[in-house]
Amino acid sequence: MSKNGFSRREFLRTGAISTVALGSGLIGRQKQAIKSTSSPGDAKNVIFLVSDGMSSGTLSLADLLKQQQFGDKTNWIKLYESDSEYHRGLMDMASLDSVVTDSAAASSSWGSGKRINNGGVNWGPSNEQHKTICEIFRDAGKSTGLVSTARITHATPAGFGANVQSRSMEDEIAVQYLERGYDVLMGGGKRHFDSSRRRDGRDLYSDYEQQGYTVVKSRGELTRATRNSKLLGVFYDSHLPYTVDHRTLPELQQSVPTLAEMTDAALDRLSRNDDGFILQIEGGRVDHAAHGNCPSGLIYDQIAFDDAVKTVMDFTDGRDDTLVILTTDHGNANPGLSGLGSGYRESPGMLATLQNYRHSFEWIYDQLDYSYSDESISGVTVKRIMDIVEYAANTQITRSEALMVQQALMGKFSAPFRNRQGTGAVLAGVLANYNGIYFIGTNHTADYVELSAWGPGSDRIPGFARNTELFDLMVDMADVRAYAQG
Amino acid sequence: MSKNGFSRREFLRTGAISTVALGSGLIGRQKQAIKSTSSPGDAKNVIFLVSDGMSSGTLSLADLLKQQQFGDKTNWIKLYESDSEYHRGLMDMASLDSVVTDSAAASSSWGSGKRINNGGVNWGPSNEQHKTICEIFRDAGKSTGLVSTARITHATPAGFGANVQSRSMEDEIAVQYLERGYDVLMGGGKRHFDSSRRRDGRDLYSDYEQQGYTVVKSRGELTRATRNSKLLGVFYDSHLPYTVDHRTLPELQQSVPTLAEMTDAALDRLSRNDDGFILQIEGGRVDHAAHGNCPSGLIYDQIAFDDAVKTVMDFTDGRDDTLVILTTDHGNANPGLSGLGSGYRESPGMLATLQNYRHSFEWIYDQLDYSYSDESISGVTVKRIMDIVEYAANTQITRSEALMVQQALMGKFSAPFRNRQGTGAVLAGVLANYNGIYFIGTNHTADYVELSAWGPGSDRIPGFARNTELFDLMVDMADVRAYAQG
Repeated sequence: MSKNGFSRREFLRTGAISTVALGSGLIGRQKQAIKSTSSPGDAKNVIFLVSDGMSSGTLSLADLLKQQQFGDKTNWIKLYESDSEYHRGLMDMASLDSVVTDSAAASSSWGSGKRINNGGVNWGPSNEQHKTICEIFRDAGKSTGLVSTARITHATPAGFGANVQSRSMEDEIAVQYLERGYDVLMGGGKRHFDSSRRRDGRDLYSDYEQQGYTVVKSRGELTRATRNSKLLGVFYDSHLPYTVDHRTLPELQQSVPTLAEMTDAALDRLSRNDDGFILQIEGGRVDHAAHGNCPSGLIYDQIAFDDAVKTVMDFTDGRDDTLVILTTDHGNANPGLSGLGSGYRESPGMLATLQNYRHSFEWIYDQLDYSYSDESISGVTVKRIMDIVEYAANTQITRSEALMVQQALMGKFSAPFRNRQGTGAVLAGVLANYNGIYFIGTNHTADYVELSAWGPGSDRIPGFARNTELFDLMVDMADVRAYAQG
Repeated sequence: MSKNGFSRREFLRTGAISTVALGSGLIGRQKQAIKSTSSPGDAKNVIFLVSDGMSSGTLSLADLLKQQQFGDKTNWIKLYESDSEYHRGLMDMASLDSVVTDSAAASSSWGSGKRINNGGVNWGPSNEQHKTICEIFRDAGKSTGLVSTARITHATPAGFGANVQSRSMEDEIAVQYLERGYDVLMGGGKRHFDSSRRRDGRDLYSDYEQQGYTVVKSRGELTRATRNSKLLGVFYDSHLPYTVDHRTLPELQQSVPTLAEMTDAALDRLSRNDDGFILQIEGGRVDHAAHGNCPSGLIYDQIAFDDAVKTVMDFTDGRDDTLVILTTDHGNANPGLSGLGSGYRESPGMLATLQNYRHSFEWIYDQLDYSYSDESISGVTVKRIMDIVEYAANTQITRSEALMVQQALMGKFSAPFRNRQGTGAVLAGVLANYNGIYFIGTNHTADYVELSAWGPGSDRIPGFARNTELFDLMVDMADVRAYAQG
């Protein structure tokens, strides 16, 4: 990306020269010296990029594999290598009731500036409903957008635009989005819009259309849709498929857009408002893959998220009116490439086996006709497990390894840490003997998270940030504080 | 810490005002604007702090537990919260032959600016011997020091001052330190100095004394030692005991100094040289605890390392002549506090159980009279395991959990990932049911690592650094490049 950030005009307007040149003792203290270059209101637009559940190791693994496979680093790491201006911090994402946050409380901390208990969406412990950042920007005359590879009614997008007591109230969230009139909504989650799938039988597609939305349900429809209306795009019943499955199956490529494509479509529409916009873009399935200990789901979805980062970089290139925040909401399962072999020399080759994975664990479970709620294991023989894993992961596991997977499927595998005895953990462990990638468990972690930003206001990112500070930053830099109440 | 870094004098001398005020388009690009405030030679002293094998999660866990237990954050995180000037990057620590580095190749990359194969110490693949940074600083008339909680002859300190084909040649490293005349050496490793323990039977203590060193072997002797001579301090046969054992056992407190105390003693001596010094300070056992999956060893040694960070901060407070680099050499086992319980609400309480741990896994194994090389398990009953774990970790594990530990001790425990079936991994997994902390395996990881720095030259830290760049930074900022050859 080119040198974006503050133009000389920007600099002169805010009077930073005098601060830098005349202020005694300020030199060399980057935070103070740089702080003076941004002023409230400088960010007409705000773009918030979140890779959900991205542990530190996930960022590294994606960059290492992208180099191996495509001869190129991730855009996130290239940002750090570049001469562009950006700012970076660590962030404490704790919720009100735990050092380990969930995505609903995490996104709410950014979306309304309040820490709440895990599981709620902008909903306080005494049933307070906090006004959301999408409503605030909307009331200020700006456009609003949410894009995700998860269901668009899922916790992270909802945290920017909904108020519900429980994140599971996704049917209600789909209605709130409509009532609140957000401009662009794209992701998975047909089941919360379709009359045959909603608990109340309401046909939300038709309700959205009556409110002036263009509704699209496939990649082709998205391509052909008008740019001059509000947009609802839902491309799958639940979450969008994993990138590793999408790249293998042509029918998915036909029907489901990539996160980068949705991002481009959203920016195309939102940027038509001269008063600006806010857009949240979520790589939602990085988190799901981490929960499921699925390395191919994890890494290729992180790379797909990184493609969307590039789309945003291209948008901000040459602009000085857009604050971009790039982060994650919490660690999850802390994956890493574990050094193996004499002098760890086998590790690079083991990582490279990922390049030949055709599918995610989710696809494997589908083939086994098995679900987490299924207590029957009939037909899932050791041989069948070996065959399907060989096809999906291009890896021949042993009979004893396949037996462990079978035991896990039956709920009969015992691991020392109970959080590690599910099928995903066992299958990941078996494959780690070949790919070297493993996980600590199947849940979120308390790790402080990676935070970076560019554009006006990014200079105000604290070196160690509390999650709620991002809400204040976005509201102040867009100068919409007046709309934050009521 | 107070606002250290560049004084106004420094700023004026390097002419940064004109660069900032007159350079077109420079404003807001922190790297360029700030770069001009440091000049080669500004760093009379260099202090290199390395927490060995510190995954991102380790930094977070230490900060979370320190807040819970002591009501205070770690100094590392407080640096990021402060208004002090510091600079931060991610670092790629790959060695010549793997994306997963070992400590020897890692420290060598800093110590001579060359990537070498894992396992060597400043020793190239064609038997090249690269001049080390301690020799370079020594030849420039500066003092040199190495301090570690590992054996002082271990890979990380050796990487700054020795050349050997294999890191295991610690007897030879002890001789090289003497021949090369480094000024301060403190840590564990008596076995490589004592005539009764060295393979060649040489009495290195006496050789060091003949070369003018004061030799101390206990904390008391260190306290009483003269400040006006070279110093060799070795305080334990192998590595120093873990902090969690040290704080429980008064006899260890008597005989073994803390890393912060050794750091203070080293700075006291090295800073007497008006021409400056280089000092490497290693928290060496963070890595060992990660290999062993021992959470109490890991976190309390990270906190002890952080105490040494504070000692260095106090030293640099008010100075503008000392470049401090604070980092790690690689991730290890990627520990994390896994969210457990409904809404992850049990996690904070689970983490708190660590506060009542009396001992490390190493101590537990000693009590069980078991070593990794011991094939006999006689006498180590399930009841005995339960009793010792209850005393050491203040946790009552179940019989079935203790049975898993017993199986692991006998080498009969089967985990899906073979890297996870050793005793440490199994014992950690059992305890993770109570403390929530778990590990991906027992080896180093390929994660990019945390890098921060303050003082003159820290402004030149790249946002994404290659490990070898730190060598160039140290040599250039101390203006000792002329001594780097031959």
